[in-house]
Amino acid sequence: MNSQPVVGMIGAGQLARMSCPAAIALAVRFRVLAAAADESAAQVCQGTALGDYRSAADVLDFASGCDVITFDHEHVPGAVIEALEAAGHAVRPGSRALRFAQDKRAMRGRLAEAGIACPHWASVSDLAGVVAFAERHGWPVVLKAVTGGYDGKGVWVCAMAEQAAEVLSHGLDLIAEQLVPFDRELAVLVARSPAGQGAAYPVVQTVQAGGICREVIAPAPGLRPGLAAEAQRIGLQIAAGLDVTGVLAVELFEAGGELLVNELAMRPHNSGHWTIDGAVTSQFEQHLRAVLNLPLGQTSQLAPVTVTVNVLGGQDPDLHDRLIHVMAADPGSRVQLYGKPVRPGRKVGHVTASGSRLEQVRARARRAASYLADGVESESLDWGTGR
Amino acid sequence: MNSQPVVGMIGAGQLARMSCPAAIALAVRFRVLAAAADESAAQVCQGTALGDYRSAADVLDFASGCDVITFDHEHVPGAVIEALEAAGHAVRPGSRALRFAQDKRAMRGRLAEAGIACPHWASVSDLAGVVAFAERHGWPVVLKAVTGGYDGKGVWVCAMAEQAAEVLSHGLDLIAEQLVPFDRELAVLVARSPAGQGAAYPVVQTVQAGGICREVIAPAPGLRPGLAAEAQRIGLQIAAGLDVTGVLAVELFEAGGELLVNELAMRPHNSGHWTIDGAVTSQFEQHLRAVLNLPLGQTSQLAPVTVTVNVLGGQDPDLHDRLIHVMAADPGSRVQLYGKPVRPGRKVGHVTASGSRLEQVRARARRAASYLADGVESESLDWGTGR
Repeated sequence: MNSQPVVGMIGAGQLARMSCPAAIALAVRFRVLAAAADESAAQVCQGTALGDYRSAADVLDFASGCDVITFDHEHVPGAVIEALEAAGHAVRPGSRALRFAQDKRAMRGRLAEAGIACPHWASVSDLAGVVAFAERHGWPVVLKAVTGGYDGKGVWVCAMAEQAAEVLSHGLDLIAEQLVPFDRELAVLVARSPAGQGAAYPVVQTVQAGGICREVIAPAPGLRPGLAAEAQRIGLQIAAGLDVTGVLAVELFEAGGELLVNELAMRPHNSGHWTIDGAVTSQFEQHLRAVLNLPLGQTSQLAPVTVTVNVLGGQDPDLHDRLIHVMAADPGSRVQLYGKPVRPGRKVGHVTASGSRLEQVRARARRAASYLADGVESESLDWGTGR
Repeated sequence: MNSQPVVGMIGAGQLARMSCPAAIALAVRFRVLAAAADESAAQVCQGTALGDYRSAADVLDFASGCDVITFDHEHVPGAVIEALEAAGHAVRPGSRALRFAQDKRAMRGRLAEAGIACPHWASVSDLAGVVAFAERHGWPVVLKAVTGGYDGKGVWVCAMAEQAAEVLSHGLDLIAEQLVPFDRELAVLVARSPAGQGAAYPVVQTVQAGGICREVIAPAPGLRPGLAAEAQRIGLQIAAGLDVTGVLAVELFEAGGELLVNELAMRPHNSGHWTIDGAVTSQFEQHLRAVLNLPLGQTSQLAPVTVTVNVLGGQDPDLHDRLIHVMAADPGSRVQLYGKPVRPGRKVGHVTASGSRLEQVRARARRAASYLADGVESESLDWGTGR
């Protein structure tokens, strides 16, 4: 085995961390570029390099030891990615695809060209533009930063002009979107390799609160088979149309029996964490296979229902103290901890449960995640952000 | 999360390597003591220390940064383990238990005291002793080194006195055992925590050839339920009786409807690799839970049948070149590579397949392992040792 391929991932958060086991299984040498040695993936990955993902010099230096470069997040500047490509590195996904995960205006424009249904949207540069958009599509209006944001946010739901004015005052490049009166949120995860092979996972339902994904149910309960197939078709069409390599997560609104694309992410995604314990091939292995141009793995579920609930940090910094209870209470629950310092409301892990009956499985996952977060067992999602 | 517990494993082979993903999931800091930086686990484990497991100084130094010490193999000298315990380290399994995995005479004596059925055996120190044993139990006689061996072997099947004389000439401490006319070989994997909790996995059938485990079938096909329960009872009885902490593998002969204990291993074991993809809790996570005194995980199977076939090195050193075919031919097969240099006949990985029908699942696992070994797809096990 003299030819273990080397995959370098830029970023060392929990997605990089959860990629390590997949690399270990396939004897793929896995390297991460971390900002600090105590980051989530840097704690566990033997091939950790320290550097700044915004620095072309750091990133080029990191890439020099890798066969393929891929990403833990979408914040690497386009110019840095282009410098990697210009230097001859295999970058997957490449700059042409990544642009649509980094620039919401470009993404909306490209999906519209492809005839893929999205919420109504428009570029806005001033309050008059927002008000005109609201006259056509009603308040509230969703303002989204084309890239970046402020105060850790890039999306603002504005109920009235005054709120929009406050967002506009920060001088960001913005688009306005209709607030879709959705019935629920769905996500479809697909993978695509440079050879053009595509594979789609079962469509999941996601439950968000306060802009944070709290719960993922696989498969989306009661989803009409035609609509599930349509979601998978949309995912594969976007992956092929945008020349995505690796995993692509497409967040969708289900509204009145229709699907509208909300967001894209070109990397393993929170909506796919259930695949670690609930699918034949985890999204992390699938991403590695895809970026290495290996055949994709089977995406089918191991159990009829799998539910993942995120563990949000509570007041107590020590999650390990509470593992004993969670494991004793439910020996079948699957715990993943990210090794991150606990801060209230921050994603610090997740719990997955599988079984045959949705209500039972969901209750198990919720109770375990709630208890890990702050020591209270609850089957509601009203916890973990400062209860 | 200020209290990530630190587990140190002495040894850095594939068992240590496959423990890394379990540690990553539970945010357990995992350290290995490796002889060289290119050993299987040292390639991937962020917490690799270099040292000699036979040196009390090296091992004590390694242990000073760990909350719990455990083992990848059973070759750490008893005196080194006792030095660890004398220094106050938590060693799991402890020296009193490990002795029975290191000393075959002590093991046989202890199991006999406990009333657990074993092959007929006797201590032998000269040819007269071996011949006397053969007069009672017939040729061939199995000679086993009480500890260690020579030429990488510790077990010799002697068809006649001349062969026994050759083994005796090496001056080892030996026991003689009856060659059991078994119907098949089984194994049961159990775990036990310091708190005394025990858990048993489904009993598996193992297929050995040339002294090497080639295939593991979970559950053992057609095993009488009473006998399966008896095997699990034996495993749990031994674990409790010997005060084992961690995972214990018990290799058994099934002969004429009876079970005889063949060997013990107090660590994750080849007969349990199927649990990575085929059970709710892998044996590697179970071992970590047990040595950390955490509640044990569910041991049930994710599919009706799971088969693991070992990949033995063939003539071609490059396994990765052949991954593409295996993955394309069977997207549901699960490949584990150990990152070890290929040598003919050496275990360098395994393939696991799961499904409903034994013959189909076994054929899938065998074809994939055969192809990885040397590029020939075969459903027989006559490969990988120089075909």
